[in-house]
This record gives sequence, C-alpha cells and structure tokens, in this order.
Amino acid sequence: MNNDAVIPDISLLNQLGEVVGSDYAFVDQSSLEEYGHDYTEDLSFPPAILLKPGSVEEVSAILRIASLHEIPVTPIGARTGLSGGALSVRKGIGLSMERFNKIIEIDEKNSQVTVEPGVITQVLQEAVKAKGLMYPPDPASRGSCFIGGNVSENSGGPKAVKYGVTKDYVLNLEVVLPNGEVIWTGANTLKNSTGYNLTQLMVGSEGTLGVITKIVMRLIPHPQQDLLMLVPFRSAEKACEAVSAIFHAGVTPSGMEFMERHAILYTMKFMDEEPVPLAEDDQAHLLIEVDGNDLEALMADCETIASVVTEYDCGEILFAQDQAQKDQLWKLRRRVGEAVKAQSIYKEEDTVVPRFELPRLLTAVKEVGHKYGFESVCYGHAGDGNLHVNILRGEMTEESWNKTVKVGIRELFERVKALGGTISGEHGIGLVQREYMDIMFSEGHLQLMRAIKQAFDPKGIMNPGKII
Amino acid sequence: MNNDAVIPDISLLNQLGEVVGSDYAFVDQSSLEEYGHDYTEDLSFPPAILLKPGSVEEVSAILRIASLHEIPVTPIGARTGLSGGALSVRKGIGLSMERFNKIIEIDEKNSQVTVEPGVITQVLQEAVKAKGLMYPPDPASRGSCFIGGNVSENSGGPKAVKYGVTKDYVLNLEVVLPNGEVIWTGANTLKNSTGYNLTQLMVGSEGTLGVITKIVMRLIPHPQQDLLMLVPFRSAEKACEAVSAIFHAGVTPSGMEFMERHAILYTMKFMDEEPVPLAEDDQAHLLIEVDGNDLEALMADCETIASVVTEYDCGEILFAQDQAQKDQLWKLRRRVGEAVKAQSIYKEEDTVVPRFELPRLLTAVKEVGHKYGFESVCYGHAGDGNLHVNILRGEMTEESWNKTVKVGIRELFERVKALGGTISGEHGIGLVQREYMDIMFSEGHLQLMRAIKQAFDPKGIMNPGKII
Repeated sequence: MNNDAVIPDISLLNQLGEVVGSDYAFVDQSSLEEYGHDYTEDLSFPPAILLKPGSVEEVSAILRIASLHEIPVTPIGARTGLSGGALSVRKGIGLSMERFNKIIEIDEKNSQVTVEPGVITQVLQEAVKAKGLMYPPDPASRGSCFIGGNVSENSGGPKAVKYGVTKDYVLNLEVVLPNGEVIWTGANTLKNSTGYNLTQLMVGSEGTLGVITKIVMRLIPHPQQDLLMLVPFRSAEKACEAVSAIFHAGVTPSGMEFMERHAILYTMKFMDEEPVPLAEDDQAHLLIEVDGNDLEALMADCETIASVVTEYDCGEILFAQDQAQKDQLWKLRRRVGEAVKAQSIYKEEDTVVPRFELPRLLTAVKEVGHKYGFESVCYGHAGDGNLHVNILRGEMTEESWNKTVKVGIRELFERVKALGGTISGEHGIGLVQREYMDIMFSEGHLQLMRAIKQAFDPKGIMNPGKII
Repeated sequence: MNNDAVIPDISLLNQLGEVVGSDYAFVDQSSLEEYGHDYTEDLSFPPAILLKPGSVEEVSAILRIASLHEIPVTPIGARTGLSGGALSVRKGIGLSMERFNKIIEIDEKNSQVTVEPGVITQVLQEAVKAKGLMYPPDPASRGSCFIGGNVSENSGGPKAVKYGVTKDYVLNLEVVLPNGEVIWTGANTLKNSTGYNLTQLMVGSEGTLGVITKIVMRLIPHPQQDLLMLVPFRSAEKACEAVSAIFHAGVTPSGMEFMERHAILYTMKFMDEEPVPLAEDDQAHLLIEVDGNDLEALMADCETIASVVTEYDCGEILFAQDQAQKDQLWKLRRRVGEAVKAQSIYKEEDTVVPRFELPRLLTAVKEVGHKYGFESVCYGHAGDGNLHVNILRGEMTEESWNKTVKVGIRELFERVKALGGTISGEHGIGLVQREYMDIMFSEGHLQLMRAIKQAFDPKGIMNPGKII
C-alpha cells in the first residue's frame, strides 16, 4: 500500500480553493487540526487542505482534480466516528460534508425521506417524527453525528434489535464516483432486483468508494407507546444469559442494552447525577424498552420480561415512571462512551456475536484482559450480541499500549470469530481495526475487496489507508 | 461481449464428469433440453454438459477446471425463474444445485437457519414454522422454487410489504468464487460493519459472481394470527389508489395483492374453480392480509381497511371464513402466472414504482399497450408498488413480438423510471431485460458494474450473457 503523504503544491491548492470559494477552503493550522481528529482514541491526522463544498457539482469538480493529480480525499462528517474513518492519514484533501445539511423532502405519501449527508441524525429523526414517521437507527452520538456518517459506517444503535441498522433503511444514494461522475445507485422503491446492489455496497464502505451526496431512506409509522425498565443483575454473565431468554419467551424489545457496573459508575460520576440506585452487588444492568401502539400489550410484554429476568438472579427492577425518567435513563446509556473517555484514553472494540453467545463473549473479554493485563469496561447492544469493549489505557506505558494490548485484541478477535462473530458490528474498520482484517478474511477474500475498491477507484484517491 | 457458444471437447467432458461421478453428469439430449429452459417465455438454451455436484468441494473443482479452460458455467436452480437467469446461453456447463437440498441447522437459540441453496422455499418455511419461526419471503412459486434462486434473484412475494425481501434475511453466504476459492461473505451476526458487504452484493447477482453453496438467514417469531379479505373495485386505478390510503390510515398489511379482472378470470378458468363471485363490473381486486398475535387488533385493522376502501368505489368485501377459504384465495393469487401462460405465451415485466405512483404506472401500462397494440394482464404486489405486467403474445406475428413489443416495453420502462421506479422489483434482469439496462443506468454506471463483475470473475465464466 502507498502510505505517502500528499501535500498539493500552491497552484493546486489555489485550484481546489477556487472550486468551493475562499470562504470554504482552509489551510490554516487550527482548522486543519480541528478536522484532523474524530472520537477515536487521541489520534490526529490533519489534511493538507480542508474543503467544504456546497453542491454535488463542487464535489464532482474536486474529485476530478483529485483524480487527475492523485490527491487523497478523505470525506469528513461530524467526526464522531470510533474507528478513525475520517482521519486524513495521507494528508491531501479533507472533504467536510457539513454544508450538505438539508432535509430535501419528506415524502409522506410513500413514507420516504430524501436527505443530504450532513444532516444530524437526531434532527432527521425529529423532523420525520413530526409527520408521524420513524427513522429508527439511533447511534449514541445521534445528537451530533451526521446521517452520511451513519450510512458510511452502517451504524446501528439501541433500536437495531427490533428495527435493524442503517442499511435496512437506505433505498437509493446519489454518489460522486472518484472520477467525478455522479450516479444514483438504485431507485426509490422498496424492492429492486435491477443489477448489482451498489446501494448496499456503498453502505458501510466508509468513504472508500465515492462521496455520498444524497440519501433516500424508507421510514416506518412511529410507534405511539413505549415502556422502559432497568434491571440490575448480581452477575454480568447472568445478565447476558437473560437476553436470549427474553427473546425465547416471545418478546422482541425495541431496546436491550447491557452496561457493566463500571460503565454506570463512571457515567453517573461524569454526569454528576445518580439516576440509578446502584447496590453493592449489582454487577451489570439491562436497560430494556418495548414499543408499539397498544399499551396493554406492552405491559404484558414487561410482565413476561420481569418473570424471565427473575430466573437470572436479578435485583429490584426499576420501571421508568414518566418521560423525564425515560430520558434520564437513556441519557445515562448514551453518555457511557464519553464518560469512560473522561476516565482514560481507551481503545474501543466493537465485537459482535450471535446473540446467544454473548455470555461467552463477555467471559472471553475478561479472560483476555486478565492475560494481557488490561482493564476493560463493557456495554452495548445486547439484543444484537454487539458488545462495546473499552480497553482503558490508564497508566499503561507506550510499549504496552501499542504492542501488548494489540496482541490481546488479536486474541480476543480470534475468540470472537470462533463464536461465529465478527470484529465490527456498527463502528466500521476504518484505520484502527484494519490490521485485524486477516483474522476474518482469507488473502483471496481481501484481494477480492481490493479489486472492488479498484473497480470504483482505480487511482486509489478515496480515503486511502482505511479498511483494506 | 463474447457470445460464442463453448462446447468442451470429449476429454474435458470426461474430466468434468469425473468430478461429480457418472451418475451426476449428463450429455444426453433429453437431460440437456430439460435443463435448458425455465419459466421465461418459451426460451430454450441447453448446456453442453449438465453437472449435479454434491458438495462444495465438487463445485470448487468444477469452477477450477472451468476457469482454466474458460468454459461458461450457468448455475441452475428449480428453473422457475422469469428472467432467463438459468439459461445456458453460451452452452458450456449447466450446474444444477438440486443435490444441495439439506436444511443444515435450525438454530432456535439465535433464530437463524443454515440451509443449502437447493432446498425448496416452502419446505424451508414449513421446517422453521414447526419451531415457531418464520422465513417470510414467499414467491408465488414457493412450492417448487429453490431458496438459492430466491437469493440469486433477491425474490420478494406477497409478504414483502410488511417483512421485506430475501436480502433482508440473508446474514452470511458460503460462496465458491470463479477461481474455485471458497469464502464466507460475512458473519452469522445481526450487525456487521466489517469491510465491504459482499453478502448483499451476492444477493441478486443472479449467479454471475460465484456459486452459493450455503446460506445463513435470520428468522423472526411466527405470528399467531392472520385475517384475509378480498375487495372488488369498479376501477383498477381506484384499487391502486386505495393501496396508499390504507397505509396512510396507519395499517401495515402483511399482504396487499392486486389482480386485474382478467387475471382472476383466466385463473378461475385454469383452476376450474370459482372461489370468487366475480360481478360484471368488478375491474380489479385487492387481496389484503393482516397478521400478528392479537386477534382483536387485527379485526380493528380490518375495520379500518374496510372503511378506507369504501371511499374508493369498492364492491362487497369477502372475508375469508376459515383456513380452507384463505388457502383457496391464496392459491388463486399464486396461480395467476401459470394461468396466464396457459392462455398465451407472454413476456413478463416486473415493474416497480414508489407505492403512491401505482395508479400512474397502471395507466402507463395500458396507454403503452394501446399505442403498440398489445394486450396485458396486470397483477402483483401493490403494497410495494410492484406490478407484474404479462404481455400476451396471442396471435402476434414474430415481427411484432420480437420488435414492436420491445419498443413498447422500452417506452413503458422509460415511464417507470420517470415515476421514480425501476425495471425489476423481484425477478431480476437475467437474459430478457438486459437490453433495457441503459434506461436505468448511464454508461459509466454500467462500466462500474462490469468492473465489479471483472473483480470477481476475470475470465468471465460465471453465467455469461446475463445482467450486463
């Protein structure tokens, strides 16, 4: 792979700047540094020039110039990513999509929305909710992340357990290919068997195949009711076991979140709030939501859940009494990542296994941590078998952090694979998980991915150094 | 494109035959002809040799030989396809997957199934239903089609309106690549953001990228109740308009099928049964199903539907009284295709538009038919905006059938595109729609698809002459 940094000469910088206009081209150190990091550890990779295009024509013109001169282009969203996908590792052009911030049309007749990639996910959710519609995927960062980033990483979030992930809502994409050509990948239809599914190939491709400039998504009717309960367990493994048992009892919750004791402790300290009465022997919690239109049916679901969890040595169940309490509990869950980060720099692993294997996954995390001497805080989307493992740096030496821990992560990922799982459920591979791709894929399989990349991007300009 | 037929010499035929053993290699005319057609018009393209491999190792060995000698390989399922995807247009090897007929594991703990591609869809559905689980996609041919064909064409069926299409259930695929290498495309997890989504790229790729040998699918809890109603309308356009209105009223049916008068007439004649009291002025029917676990909620949905459809000039609604009547009505719907075929050879167009545009689509079909002088019978999955247009050959001359009608189809597809739709919703492009791909895609877009094909299949052996 070509790892060379590319710093365009002054005439090229001027040419690129002219495409977007001087208000939207930046080469000052402070702007470049600001756009050189995301939420991934403490990494910093500023681009050589930052461009903020305002139209698909400008994106196309930038990519034509970049293609001609083989300048790396790194699409940048809200920089909330956790795998380093938006870092300009080979300098070149940082392409911020923040001006693509319009909801173009909410098509109520067809339950669809056409949106630009720089719209904040929560803004989109609230706009469609006002029409009685729902866009379910809601990453923890939904208040600040961009929908385009969600599409690029195939984001999930708590509601994925019932409603699926980003890919399940994307119908059609306007994409600027690396050569500057603009295509629509599909059609605005619920069904499509017309040629290769480039829509689904773009979803989760982390900006390595082209630049997404419009997104058409399907929406669903917004459920009218939801109930939320928080269940403490004396054993984290038992909490994980209860997850499968709840599905087995015939209930499909709309949220099924797992938090280790320390995830909650750190977060309450960070928020300086104590919404949860944490008992001495509470080792983990499940935050469980059900939703639908029939309140009685939901209460029956809660009763079923309550009777299941008592079989798994749980403590006293907290039922959220009103919207304020629901909001408080969800806020607690959403801020775990931030809270752990305030505690220590960490490496975030985004492991996922078939749901029933979750207890085995948690055991593996702790065993590997013990063997390699690292502490971890675990939480995540238990209903999907998706466990976020925050490995804390704490007082670790440079050597341990960059070598020993990586050997431990490799061993953990091998155990994940043996459980039928994979190394990223919803955060993507980006920069930081790339070195582990050989665990999941044979060399022939990786060659195939490289050939697909080559088909889209023969000059290798799009987000180089990511995924493969 | 290379259109040359390839007939391997006798030593190659022997070599191929040895891979599967003499019981499973065929060169006799009758076998070749039998496997040389599917349900598409009256087309016939026999392979030069028919092989029925029994293991992934045999498939791999066949593809290695085929790659080395550049012999076309056409995967063949149950030959129920409607776009000619399984026709051996360049002779070579016809690769029947019928011996891959095992349900390997129903994993109740994780609500997943691992299945071979030659399992009949209905057999799969019934096996998982016995465990309380549901595999929803159910093409009209589900009693005879293979699940592998469903994956290859991204099939839909009546339940797609609520539950989605085949692609929404496929988690992971074992695939033999054209060079003989065997890969798993993903992982057995509900979420996956690990590299390019080759699983979704394989789904709907119609056997042009590799041979699918195992399929892992997610399942959902089987709903315990369903209700079925048949609604006659005085105007086909009004029936189409009612479709969107039902969704707008907050009901998501599990089936929402449209049938023109002639679809029902031909089918009742074909079946020699009259389950439907067809009034003189019934121009079209909607067959509407709702499902769930709460019978009262479903009855409330039916009342909502009934009150909506009366706004669209409907006749007397027939509520199915028992399972026998439900079966009879579904049988009527499922056999329309066969019945029309018994009437006349036809070309089947698989148009799809955003749901609300369905009345405009129906109008376009009839206007184009009038202009180019062909009769059509229309029916399909109205809830998805997916209208099957059967263009009858009747007494048409060879000239009209192969030229004039094709000009008409082109015009129809252009109008479909203008409505935001596309040229295949669930049948695939295969052989017969290939000539219309330029309507949907720019030359640059088609080049990109060709480059993806090239990435998988540099020798161009897999199902040549299809899609692109």
